[in-house]
Amino acid sequence: MNERLMSSTIFLLLTLGAPALPAQSKPRARDLGVPFEGTPGPLNAITDVKGVEVGHSTIISGEGPLKRGKGPVRTGVTAILPRGRFSQDQVFSGWFSLNGNGEMTGTTWIEESGLLEGPIMITNTHSVGVVRDAVIAWRLNQAGPDKEGFAWSLPVVAETWDGYLNDTNGFHVKEKHAFEALDGARGGPVTEGNVGGGTGMICHEFKGGIGTASRMLRAEGRMYTLGILVQANYGLRHQLKIAGVPVGREIPEGAVRTREEGSIIIVVATDAPLLPHQLKRLARRASLGLARLGSTSGNGSGDIFIAFSTENPGAARDAGIVSLTMLPNDSMNQLFEATVQGVEEAIVNALVAAETMTGVDGHKVPALPHEQLREVLRKYNRLTGP
Amino acid sequence: MNERLMSSTIFLLLTLGAPALPAQSKPRARDLGVPFEGTPGPLNAITDVKGVEVGHSTIISGEGPLKRGKGPVRTGVTAILPRGRFSQDQVFSGWFSLNGNGEMTGTTWIEESGLLEGPIMITNTHSVGVVRDAVIAWRLNQAGPDKEGFAWSLPVVAETWDGYLNDTNGFHVKEKHAFEALDGARGGPVTEGNVGGGTGMICHEFKGGIGTASRMLRAEGRMYTLGILVQANYGLRHQLKIAGVPVGREIPEGAVRTREEGSIIIVVATDAPLLPHQLKRLARRASLGLARLGSTSGNGSGDIFIAFSTENPGAARDAGIVSLTMLPNDSMNQLFEATVQGVEEAIVNALVAAETMTGVDGHKVPALPHEQLREVLRKYNRLTGP
Amino acid sequence: MNERLMSSTIFLLLTLGAPALPAQSKPRARDLGVPFEGTPGPLNAITDVKGVEVGHSTIISGEGPLKRGKGPVRTGVTAILPRGRFSQDQVFSGWFSLNGNGEMTGTTWIEESGLLEGPIMITNTHSVGVVRDAVIAWRLNQAGPDKEGFAWSLPVVAETWDGYLNDTNGFHVKEKHAFEALDGARGGPVTEGNVGGGTGMICHEFKGGIGTASRMLRAEGRMYTLGILVQANYGLRHQLKIAGVPVGREIPEGAVRTREEGSIIIVVATDAPLLPHQLKRLARRASLGLARLGSTSGNGSGDIFIAFSTENPGAARDAGIVSLTMLPNDSMNQLFEATVQGVEEAIVNALVAAETMTGVDGHKVPALPHEQLREVLRKYNRLTGP
Amino acid sequence: MNERLMSSTIFLLLTLGAPALPAQSKPRARDLGVPFEGTPGPLNAITDVKGVEVGHSTIISGEGPLKRGKGPVRTGVTAILPRGRFSQDQVFSGWFSLNGNGEMTGTTWIEESGLLEGPIMITNTHSVGVVRDAVIAWRLNQAGPDKEGFAWSLPVVAETWDGYLNDTNGFHVKEKHAFEALDGARGGPVTEGNVGGGTGMICHEFKGGIGTASRMLRAEGRMYTLGILVQANYGLRHQLKIAGVPVGREIPEGAVRTREEGSIIIVVATDAPLLPHQLKRLARRASLGLARLGSTSGNGSGDIFIAFSTENPGAARDAGIVSLTMLPNDSMNQLFEATVQGVEEAIVNALVAAETMTGVDGHKVPALPHEQLREVLRKYNRLTGP
Repeated sequence: MNERLMSSTIFLLLTLGAPALPAQSKPRARDLGVPFEGTPGPLNAITDVKGVEVGHSTIISGEGPLKRGKGPVRTGVTAILPRGRFSQDQVFSGWFSLNGNGEMTGTTWIEESGLLEGPIMITNTHSVGVVRDAVIAWRLNQAGPDKEGFAWSLPVVAETWDGYLNDTNGFHVKEKHAFEALDGARGGPVTEGNVGGGTGMICHEFKGGIGTASRMLRAEGRMYTLGILVQANYGLRHQLKIAGVPVGREIPEGAVRTREEGSIIIVVATDAPLLPHQLKRLARRASLGLARLGSTSGNGSGDIFIAFSTENPGAARDAGIVSLTMLPNDSMNQLFEATVQGVEEAIVNALVAAETMTGVDGHKVPALPHEQLREVLRKYNRLTGP
Repeated sequence: MNERLMSSTIFLLLTLGAPALPAQSKPRARDLGVPFEGTPGPLNAITDVKGVEVGHSTIISGEGPLKRGKGPVRTGVTAILPRGRFSQDQVFSGWFSLNGNGEMTGTTWIEESGLLEGPIMITNTHSVGVVRDAVIAWRLNQAGPDKEGFAWSLPVVAETWDGYLNDTNGFHVKEKHAFEALDGARGGPVTEGNVGGGTGMICHEFKGGIGTASRMLRAEGRMYTLGILVQANYGLRHQLKIAGVPVGREIPEGAVRTREEGSIIIVVATDAPLLPHQLKRLARRASLGLARLGSTSGNGSGDIFIAFSTENPGAARDAGIVSLTMLPNDSMNQLFEATVQGVEEAIVNALVAAETMTGVDGHKVPALPHEQLREVLRKYNRLTGP
Repeated sequence: MNERLMSSTIFLLLTLGAPALPAQSKPRARDLGVPFEGTPGPLNAITDVKGVEVGHSTIISGEGPLKRGKGPVRTGVTAILPRGRFSQDQVFSGWFSLNGNGEMTGTTWIEESGLLEGPIMITNTHSVGVVRDAVIAWRLNQAGPDKEGFAWSLPVVAETWDGYLNDTNGFHVKEKHAFEALDGARGGPVTEGNVGGGTGMICHEFKGGIGTASRMLRAEGRMYTLGILVQANYGLRHQLKIAGVPVGREIPEGAVRTREEGSIIIVVATDAPLLPHQLKRLARRASLGLARLGSTSGNGSGDIFIAFSTENPGAARDAGIVSLTMLPNDSMNQLFEATVQGVEEAIVNALVAAETMTGVDGHKVPALPHEQLREVLRKYNRLTGP
Repeated sequence: MNERLMSSTIFLLLTLGAPALPAQSKPRARDLGVPFEGTPGPLNAITDVKGVEVGHSTIISGEGPLKRGKGPVRTGVTAILPRGRFSQDQVFSGWFSLNGNGEMTGTTWIEESGLLEGPIMITNTHSVGVVRDAVIAWRLNQAGPDKEGFAWSLPVVAETWDGYLNDTNGFHVKEKHAFEALDGARGGPVTEGNVGGGTGMICHEFKGGIGTASRMLRAEGRMYTLGILVQANYGLRHQLKIAGVPVGREIPEGAVRTREEGSIIIVVATDAPLLPHQLKRLARRASLGLARLGSTSGNGSGDIFIAFSTENPGAARDAGIVSLTMLPNDSMNQLFEATVQGVEEAIVNALVAAETMTGVDGHKVPALPHEQLREVLRKYNRLTGP
C-alpha cells in the first residue's frame, strides 16, 4: 500500500463516519459560477430525499505498469439505499436504458413487479458479479432470509468501465468492499468525484466519477424533493457543453481518447408518490439532462437509468390490500424538469469534484480546470455570481 | 332468460336488422360438455365485471361476387365501455402484443399514462380509422370537450381482417356504426359469434367471431371477477385443441385456408385493484390461454391484448393527490389463472356460437359442428356432463 | 370552399409542383447565423436521402369565432414516402416514444416485423383516423391489393394537436387531403413552417410547424446521408434554448400558454444500411436533439419518433432468403451525432420558417422574431457569420 | 470435498467426455409414448444445431439438516456456447421475459446491439454473480482482451431457485464450477435431469432440471434446425398437462409445495438466418410451449427466454459493411411451430429424465413416475407406440 492509498483510505473512513466536509473545502459547480435552473435542496444531493443513504468503498493502490491481478488499482463500489441500511421495506421503481452497452442487474424484476427490493450498487464492469452476490450475503447477514426462506435475491448492480486507469481485469473488488459501501452508507453530504464506483471513471475525457444534485419542487400544494446521483464515465471532449456553452471545444487540452467508450449510470430518487410506470417516465427524462451536456449516447456507452420513490412504504407487503397515494400525471411536469435539471447539475458536479488521476501504465486523466471553466463561461456571458 | 336479456335481444334484432336466435336455443361451450377449469360468474361474460358494457353493430348485406364498394358485406363494430356509456372516468390499463401484425390505436398513451380514457372498439382492419375518429366525435356529442378544450383524443381501436368473407376494401363501416355500437352498449348477456366486429371472422378455419367468459376468484379475503372478450380470427385447423384434445386433426373437413392469416384481439376486465404494470401482466397472460387452443401465433397474426381494472375510480383526476388501493403482487396468481382459463373458454365460446356463413364470391366458412365436437371429446375421455 | 382556402390550395399546388422557392426569399436558421454542428446535405432536408418524397396538403379557411364544424380551419396533412410515390417496396424501420401522449398508428407492426410498409403521414390529433383509412384507399387505387388480397393495412399516421388555432373538433381533414399530400409528394426542397400537418402548430409558444434538415457523414469509408423532418408543436417559452442560449427567457413576449400541451413528431431517414434494431437506436437519439432545445418532454406531449433506412430494397419480399447489408454497431456513432444535430436544426428551421398566424377566436401566435433572435445569439457570443 | 462430490465430479467428466449414454439406459419422453408434433433432429437436443456446445458442472454433497455454508449441496452450472468453446465470434440474439421474477444478466446489451457475445450460463439464483465474473475471467484466460482492451464484459447468466433442496444461501458455486461447465462443453447428446444448473430444481412439484429437444423444418427450400434447452423449476402439480392430458390432477401424490415459487429458463438455438428482432419473436414463442404444460406463469416465476441464430458469422465485426442473409417474416411460421413444439418436449424430457432427490433437511422431491404417466396417457387415449 503506497502513501496515496493510505491517505485516501483514511479520507474515506473519515468522510463515511463524519457528518460532512466543510462546504468551503471543495467547490461544487455552482460555487464556480455555473448557472443552473431550479431550486436545490439543502445538501444539493440525493440524500436530500429523506431516508436515502449513500456509501462508498474506494480502492486505490499501486502505480506504474499494468500487471493483471496486481494493479495499479483505481476502482470501488458505491451503494445507494433507498430507505437506509436498516429497512427491509421496498420502494416503487422504474428504469430505462438509453443505450444498453452496460449492465444493470435486477431490472427484469423491477419491470415486472414495479418494486426495487434492496440497494442500488454501482461498481466497475468486471465486478458486477461479486457485488451482486455480496448484496445477497449482506442481507442474509443482516436480517436472515424472510419467512419463506428467501433473501433479496435479485440485487440491482450497475457498472461503468474503468480499464483505462484501473487493472479492471484483475478483479480487485471483493465482497468486503461491497459490505464496506453498504455498512458505510449514511444520509448527509455525499462525497463526489474519485470515490466509490466512480474512482477510476472518465467523463468527456476529463476525470469523472460520482456526482449528485437535488431539486425542490411544488406539486398539488406540497413540497417534494428529487435527488440525483450519477457515476459519470462517458463522452468525448468536443461534445461537452456546460450551461449550453461549448466548453469541450474551448478546452481541448489533455483529451485522452479518440472514441466513445464510456457509460453513465443515473439514479433518480424522489419522495413524491409515484407509481412504477410514472417512475419509468422519470428514468427516461434522465436522457434529456444527459443531452444537455452534449452527449449523443455513443454505441459503446451503457447509459442506464433507474428511478425510485420513497413514498408508499409497505407497498411490497405480501398480504392484504395495499393503500397507496399517487401524484396525478398532470402534475408530473415539475418532476420532469427537476430530473433534467438535476441530472445536468450532478454531472457537472462530478466533473468539478473529480481530481486529476494517474493510473495503469501511467495513464493520466486531467481534472476539468476550474478557472478555465470560469473563463469560458464568461466568454459566452454565462458566468453567474461574483 | 330474464326480462333484461329479452329486451336487449329485441333491441339487438332491431338495430342489427339480422335474424338472431333466441338466447336459450344457443348452447355455449360448457353446455356441450367441454371441460373448463375455474368458476365462471353468473353470465360467464365480461359483463360480470360490474359497470362493463358491450355493444355490437353488425353489418350484413348482399351476396355473390365481390364488387368493391358494393359488397357483399359481412362486418361490424364492437364496443366495450369499461365504466358504461355515461361515465367520463378513466380506468387503469395495460396492454401486450404477442404478435403485432395488427393495429390497436391508443396504446402508446396507455403505456405512458397507465390509463385508458374511453371505450375499446374492435372492427375490421380497414375501418380502424373511421371508428377511431368516430369515438372522438361521439364523446364530443355526448359530453363536449373538457375544460381545457380536449375530448378523448387517443381512442383505442383494434381490428382483425375479414376480407375472406367481407368486401373489406369497400370501407362499409361508417361513423354511424361506431355510434350504434357505443349507444347500444349494455350490461347483461353478451351476444357471441357472428356479431359486431366479429361478424366476418374465421378461427382455426371454422367460423369465428366474438366470444366471452368470466371467472370468480378469491384474493386477500375478497371475491373478485375477471371477464374476457375476444374477437377470434386466427389459427389453422390442424392446430386446434380444445381441452387439450386435438379437435382440429379429428375434424379436418371444410378447412378454408392454407396459411395463417388471422388475428385475435383479447380484452381482459377485472374489478380487482390492479395498477397499470400489474394489468400489463394480465394482458401478457392472455397469450397462455390462447396457446391452450394450439396457436403458435403466426406471422400474419395480430395478437394484441389489453387489460383494465374498474377499481380505483378517479385515478385520472387532474388535481390533488390520488388515493388508490392495490392487490399485492403475491396475490396475483389467481388472476393469472383466471385470465388463462377465461381466454381459453371465451375462444371456445366464440367457435361454438358462430354459425356457418357465406360471404364474398360464395366463400363459405363452416361452423364448428357441435355433435362432432362432443364425439371427439368423448373419444379422448374429456367430455363432461350427461 | 371560400376564397381563402382556394388561394391557399393554389399556392400549395404551385409550391409542390415547382422546383423550390428561391433560397433568398425565406431565410433558414443557419442563414440567420444560428450555429450548428455537422455537415448538411445539399438541400439540408430529409429529401437529401435519395428516394424520399414529401408532400403537404394545407387547409386554411375562415376567421373569427369558433363554430364547430365551420372553422376557422388551420390544419393539414404531411406525407413522407420513404421510396417515393410509385414504389410498393418496404423499408426497415424502428420507432421510439419519449412521451406517449400522442398517436402513431402502425407501430405495433413496425416493432414486430422491423418493416414500414408505406408512407408516414402526419396530421392533427382528431384526423388520424380519416388519414389512416385514406392511405389504404390510396394504395388500393394506385396498385390494388397484392396477390393474397391485402393492401397496406397498417398505415403509419402520427399527429399533434392544433386546437388553439384550428377548429379541430370540426374534423376538416378529409380523405382528399390525404390523397393530395400523397399525390403531391416530391423530392427536392421541402416547404417548412405553416404547411401540411404543421399548419396550426405551436412550438415553445412561438408559431411552429414543419421543419427539416440533413447531415452527411462518413462511415466505413462511404458517405451516407441522414435526414430529419419534424412537426413541432411542443414546449414552453421559458424552456427554449437555441445553440445553448436561453432564447426563451430573453424573448418572453407573446407567450400564449401557461402549461405544456404540445407534441413533436420526428422522422429520421437514412441511406445507411441499418437493421430494425439499429433504427430504433436512431429513433431514440431524436430525444437528445429535442433536449438541446430545452424540452423536458411534458406530460401532455406526444413525443414520438420513427426512423427508416432506404437501403436494403427487397427486404420485405415474401419468398426466398434475403441478402442484406448492415453497418456494424461500432460505426453508428456518426449516425447518432447526425441524428441529434439534425433534429436540433430541423426544429429551429421550423421556428424560423413559421409565420405569425391568427386562428379560432382570434388566437394569435407570433413567429419567432428573426432579428431579435440574432441579437440574443450575439449577446451570448454565439452568432455566426456576418 | 467429500466422497460423494468426488464421485459426482468424476461421473460428470465421464459423461461429458464420452460420446453419449447408450440410448436404452434412460428413456426420454417419446420413448415412454408421449405424443409430440413435428420432426426432431438426430439427437433431439439443442446440439443438433451445428456448433452449439453444452457443458454441465454438477455439485452434490452432504445430507441431512441444513447448515448454511456446509450444505447439503444440490446445485451446479450449465453452459451453452452458441459457436463452441473456441470461437470469439458473436451471434444475433433476442430475449423475452414472460414473468420477470428472475435474473438474466446481459440482456440490456442484447436488446441494444442484437448480439450475444459469449456463452449462456444457467445456475442457481444466488450464484449468478460468481458465474458472471467467471465468464469474463474464462474469456481472459482463453483469449485475452481484444485489441481495445476489452474482454466479453456483459455475460449472460440466468438462474432458477433451488433452496428447497440446496443450501443456496451457502454460495457453493465457485468460479471453478463455471470454468468446468465451459471447458466441458461439447456437441453431441446432452445429459438431462439432475445435472448442471438443473441439479436441485423442481417442476410441477416433481423433480425437474435440464431438458432438451429439437426440430427439423423446411423454409424457403432449405432444411433448418431449431434446438431448445430448458432449466425447468416452475409450476404447481395440479396445473401439469402433458399432451393435453391433466397428468397433474391424475398423479397428485408427493406434491411438495403449496404455492408457485419456481422459474424456467428457456434457450432457443437455430441455424436459420434470423435478425435480432426475429429472434425476439422466437423467444416470445417459448411462452406458448410453456403454456401447453399448463403453466400460468406465476408471480414468483422467473420465466425468461433467449434465442440466438448461428447463421451470419461475422455479424459483430467492428469494421466494414457486413453482408447478411435473412429469412423473410412470411417464412417464420415453421420456426414458431418448432419453438412451441420443442419447448413442450424439452420440458417433458426434463421431467422424465430427472430422478427422485433428497436434499436439505431431508426434503424429498419425487421423480415423475414413468409407468403412471403411461397409464394416464392411455386413459385419455393419448399414449403412442407399443
